[in-house]
Amino acid sequence: MTLINETHDPALRSWVDSANRPGHDFPIQNLPFASFRRRDRDDAWRGGVAIGDAIVDLAALARAHPFEGLAAEALAAAAQPRLNALMALGPAHWSALRLALSRALREGSAARGTVEPCLVPQAEAEYGLPATIGDYTDFYTSIHHATNIGRLFRPDNPLLPNYPWVPIGYHGRSSSIGVSPQAFHRPRGQIKAPDAPAPVLAPSRRLDIELELGVFVGPGNALGEPIPIGQAEQHVFGIVLLNDWSARDIQAWEYQPLGPFLAKNFATTISPWVVTLEALAPYRVPFERPAQDPQPLPYLDDPGNRAHGAFDIRLSIGWQTARMREQGLADHEVAQTSYRHAYWTVAQMVAHHTVNGCNLQPGDLLGTGTLSGPEAQQAAAFIELTQGGKRPLELPGGEQRTFLEDGDTVVLRGWCEAPGAARIGFGACWGTVLPVRT
Amino acid sequence: MTLINETHDPALRSWVDSANRPGHDFPIQNLPFASFRRRDRDDAWRGGVAIGDAIVDLAALARAHPFEGLAAEALAAAAQPRLNALMALGPAHWSALRLALSRALREGSAARGTVEPCLVPQAEAEYGLPATIGDYTDFYTSIHHATNIGRLFRPDNPLLPNYPWVPIGYHGRSSSIGVSPQAFHRPRGQIKAPDAPAPVLAPSRRLDIELELGVFVGPGNALGEPIPIGQAEQHVFGIVLLNDWSARDIQAWEYQPLGPFLAKNFATTISPWVVTLEALAPYRVPFERPAQDPQPLPYLDDPGNRAHGAFDIRLSIGWQTARMREQGLADHEVAQTSYRHAYWTVAQMVAHHTVNGCNLQPGDLLGTGTLSGPEAQQAAAFIELTQGGKRPLELPGGEQRTFLEDGDTVVLRGWCEAPGAARIGFGACWGTVLPVRT
Repeated sequence: MTLINETHDPALRSWVDSANRPGHDFPIQNLPFASFRRRDRDDAWRGGVAIGDAIVDLAALARAHPFEGLAAEALAAAAQPRLNALMALGPAHWSALRLALSRALREGSAARGTVEPCLVPQAEAEYGLPATIGDYTDFYTSIHHATNIGRLFRPDNPLLPNYPWVPIGYHGRSSSIGVSPQAFHRPRGQIKAPDAPAPVLAPSRRLDIELELGVFVGPGNALGEPIPIGQAEQHVFGIVLLNDWSARDIQAWEYQPLGPFLAKNFATTISPWVVTLEALAPYRVPFERPAQDPQPLPYLDDPGNRAHGAFDIRLSIGWQTARMREQGLADHEVAQTSYRHAYWTVAQMVAHHTVNGCNLQPGDLLGTGTLSGPEAQQAAAFIELTQGGKRPLELPGGEQRTFLEDGDTVVLRGWCEAPGAARIGFGACWGTVLPVRT
Repeated sequence: MTLINETHDPALRSWVDSANRPGHDFPIQNLPFASFRRRDRDDAWRGGVAIGDAIVDLAALARAHPFEGLAAEALAAAAQPRLNALMALGPAHWSALRLALSRALREGSAARGTVEPCLVPQAEAEYGLPATIGDYTDFYTSIHHATNIGRLFRPDNPLLPNYPWVPIGYHGRSSSIGVSPQAFHRPRGQIKAPDAPAPVLAPSRRLDIELELGVFVGPGNALGEPIPIGQAEQHVFGIVLLNDWSARDIQAWEYQPLGPFLAKNFATTISPWVVTLEALAPYRVPFERPAQDPQPLPYLDDPGNRAHGAFDIRLSIGWQTARMREQGLADHEVAQTSYRHAYWTVAQMVAHHTVNGCNLQPGDLLGTGTLSGPEAQQAAAFIELTQGGKRPLELPGGEQRTFLEDGDTVVLRGWCEAPGAARIGFGACWGTVLPVRT
């Protein structure tokens, strides 16, 4: 099986000049998909592909009928307001469209005259959710996060015995998933101090982030028909950045015995651009399980997953307070990690989710869980970075932070680089905390 | 505030004769809504209202334009394939349509000539989900169930300290919710025997039911805007029976720390007919909290909720094995309880769910959780009725059961009766276990 093809060639250059700028998130080797419209106009939502600083308007392009066969079918689906129809088509269609777009956007392409009128500057666009998300599942695939947070919630019992065996996951809330940039109100909830006799209803004082990736499901499976791990990735369209905002004080009081609920369902922010699994092929790495740990059960094990089931997606967290913004200070990077440190892969999430017959549908979203790495500075939530709020972070301008204050903005970033491959990026995932609503 | 109006008058009779049969679930005082089509025809799904053994085809009725004002608007919404648009309209519209239908269906109504051609026999119908369910939340509102099952999963710590304060809930799976009659395959999953060193992937051997009610949300709320308890019921359209099938062996191994996942998301069955909150008005009872328990926090407390926030909905569980079916034996009632025993009300579920700003949407479904009552024979799951599988139930024909065998059918039933009111019912909620798929 060849994972890399001509669309990944690092020597490719586009006639869209900005795409050739070193370090740009959206070179011609990336070609991520989003749902967009022109800001301040009453345009309909439609699919787009990022190239440099521009978007290829796929609805406009579809009207020009530039492609044939599978690529044309995929383009028609991608022209819709949301990408569910494109996601439903599967890898052969996605790959055909990617190849056709790559060829049309290359320097010297004869299709330039057809495509160029379909370009929209990203500066003039706003984004919608890439898909109508039927169900949102959040996993827990970082053993480092599970151990760190387990230590805070259950000091005597940080990592539970099922962790090395079960890709732990739970269902999240679809309705409150928003696209970057998202501003949301600080949640209220029941909070009980350890020494208080009763809880009170109060605004969360321990508002946190969780740096995750979000996996968009492609073709689904029928109820009762599990997806074998060897076919799992054919059911995955692509990946976005995901911020699973979390109110730790609400969570601590409510989460037993049925799991987090109001601590997490007030807002979840994803980045607008879906980077396809095909675009991520050059950054695959082997799935490695520590020798002392149990090997995955057969339904979670597969030669392809072992050889290249993990992804080296580099991730960072930036923090910007309202005062920093007023002073013209950019967000300050407080942590950096990689998806390669996850204990369970995308394929394992899909195989586990469906092993009982549960049906996935195109556009469903699977969160990876907080992607903390093995080192302290690779922690992907503030509760870990500040050791439960005990060690504040120092920010430029002299401010300190443990948890989020009103007006704070968090920006997640993701990118990939590998020897012999281009650098590609995910764009950014911005979220801002507004005061509680009373 | 008057909860009862002319539509509840127990003396009302319909020109649809079967609706006047004593003990029928669908007298003229009920008027529940479903989405249906004629079986074995290529008809479109549309809304219907049950009256006796018939369905008023609301799409056909809408074409006759029999109503005016709010009732006409509600009828147009109810003619759609799913009832989300009707649910979005709110109580004034629902009430106007109910009154118009009640008057049109009464003995002697001048509208009979218009309505009668729109009747479809229920025997010729099949049902779809009443709504496109965006998010499904399952609560845990029976303290009796929480105590019983807590004792089995955590013998030393059955009822957690947050229970009397927090209407515990968690997110469930929307994609696998089906409408009665539903047949589904026995799930496989990771199961670990207490003394085994490692889990195995195997078919569930402890397949159970949970007798619940499902609450369909009406008008939603914007993200960040909580619904006060005093307005909560205005956001509720109606109630169905709900069977939350549960694989106890999978649940025991996977549920910590984030709650049940694959143990429950393989199938959830609801009854097709949504009984409106207005139809349930005569069967309201006070919300009572045991004197020794803490009173609800102010955001969960309200005079209306105290006076009539609970519902005396009688519920039963019937069991029918494949052999019983072959022998012509009806399902055997193994338990009977009432929703009145719940520790938290519908209004409290809505107020709690949104207190953090989480947005509900029309057609969202809220499960009540397993509605076990205080007595042993009022337990609403087999794991409780059989004391963890240790005391089998005796069935007619000589069979014994603890958990579900392949071919077993479970039927949930619900009905209401009260002095000075008609008897109304929910219909039945059927589900059958098929062998595991290999």
